[in-house]
Amino acid sequence: MKEKLSIIKVGGKIVEEENSLHRFLQDFSQLDGYKILVHGGGRSATRLASQLGIQTQMINGRRITDAEMLRVVTMVYGGLVNKTVVAQLQALGMNAIGLTGADMNIIRSVKRSVKDVDYGFVGDVKKVDGAALAYLIHQKIVPVMAPLTHDGSGQILNTNADVIAGEIAKALAEYFDVTLVFCFEKKGVLADENVDESVIPLITFADFEKLKAEGVIQSGMIPKLENSFSAIRAGVQRVVITSASAINGKGGTWIKK
Amino acid sequence: MKEKLSIIKVGGKIVEEENSLHRFLQDFSQLDGYKILVHGGGRSATRLASQLGIQTQMINGRRITDAEMLRVVTMVYGGLVNKTVVAQLQALGMNAIGLTGADMNIIRSVKRSVKDVDYGFVGDVKKVDGAALAYLIHQKIVPVMAPLTHDGSGQILNTNADVIAGEIAKALAEYFDVTLVFCFEKKGVLADENVDESVIPLITFADFEKLKAEGVIQSGMIPKLENSFSAIRAGVQRVVITSASAINGKGGTWIKK
Repeated sequence: MKEKLSIIKVGGKIVEEENSLHRFLQDFSQLDGYKILVHGGGRSATRLASQLGIQTQMINGRRITDAEMLRVVTMVYGGLVNKTVVAQLQALGMNAIGLTGADMNIIRSVKRSVKDVDYGFVGDVKKVDGAALAYLIHQKIVPVMAPLTHDGSGQILNTNADVIAGEIAKALAEYFDVTLVFCFEKKGVLADENVDESVIPLITFADFEKLKAEGVIQSGMIPKLENSFSAIRAGVQRVVITSASAINGKGGTWIKK
Repeated sequence: MKEKLSIIKVGGKIVEEENSLHRFLQDFSQLDGYKILVHGGGRSATRLASQLGIQTQMINGRRITDAEMLRVVTMVYGGLVNKTVVAQLQALGMNAIGLTGADMNIIRSVKRSVKDVDYGFVGDVKKVDGAALAYLIHQKIVPVMAPLTHDGSGQILNTNADVIAGEIAKALAEYFDVTLVFCFEKKGVLADENVDESVIPLITFADFEKLKAEGVIQSGMIPKLENSFSAIRAGVQRVVITSASAINGKGGTWIKK
């Protein structure tokens, strides 16, 4: 039987405020079994960019990343957020290591080709080195992944944190019994976006298609669910969409084939 | 017989300009045996601070690091410079990993106590985990160290890159035949600071005391040489002070007991 591994993706808001980060990391440290944390940091990136007079432009919820914005996200995701999290996990007794996809060549990506939109230095994941990550994890090291990858030719690329979490989960499904948890501001996928308690406890792919057609699931939730189904189909055992205060797997929306 | 390990410390200027960085990393990639890179990044930190309206204050060549400046150096050293170097080394076929002292708990430090000067969030190295670094190195991974450490209680601390290089060299002398190379703008320690070719080929501790008394060696070179002698006394085989274009060990100033 494979050993359990939890991969927790946590969005910007939680990790960018001292109090919520501290609470979240305490919950994270109490999870049983092996674990990986994947973080965002978009709000801090937008704030730093603004302080530097760089305008943030988002299309379909994705950041346009020109050379200047790439410097900003490399500093914020790879430096500020990542190292703050690592130092705090160390204080909680977890042997964390902060990684981008460039470190140990963990995640290779390819610069997104320009179709309707030029996203700039944005990478689509090509290959995750699951063996290298599994190796670290078996040493009881906790990888903390920043949403940055590289193309193997020296270029760092900005890469969506949900996608990174999903691709890592797929690559590690061979080695571990993987639970993938996407944390966000709500308690789960909501049947009524105005009612916080209307969490849909379980969504199958058929449900997803139906809810999408009905307009219940829309905008940012669509790629999150697509990532989830893609992970489930690739052998990830469990995918949960929930709030950061419920990463122990109680509550939230469970995704099933 | 121990295997050879080169620890190269390179200052800000080299790693912060695209052309010089590229040349330097090519030379670095051609060094024989195991290797570690320790980098600075002070010029970029000062520039970013200035763009953010944060004033840089240096005392005895050391940066006063208040909470805001700590954010800046965490972003620049841990993010921008570190990940740029790692991605480029990967492109040169080296399996680099970027680390601060917080990652894998590699370097514990203690916040410098306030005597005449309050340096702020500046750390003095307490303990280097040589075994963990040796472990990575034996996997043919090339550690790229940013000049940041942590206190084990969640606090990141700004730490001088020369000191980090020296302390890592000492901790690894048990495992490897270590050559420690400090790169800077000059070709070595100069007998006459106005004559670039006046490199002193060899300095013993007795020479150092004499040259210091005579005023030939002064200011920033004094701590660099003190680090060098401290490393030699702790079992590091060779210490060389040289230019970034001569890291293969030809030329420069050699330090001997």
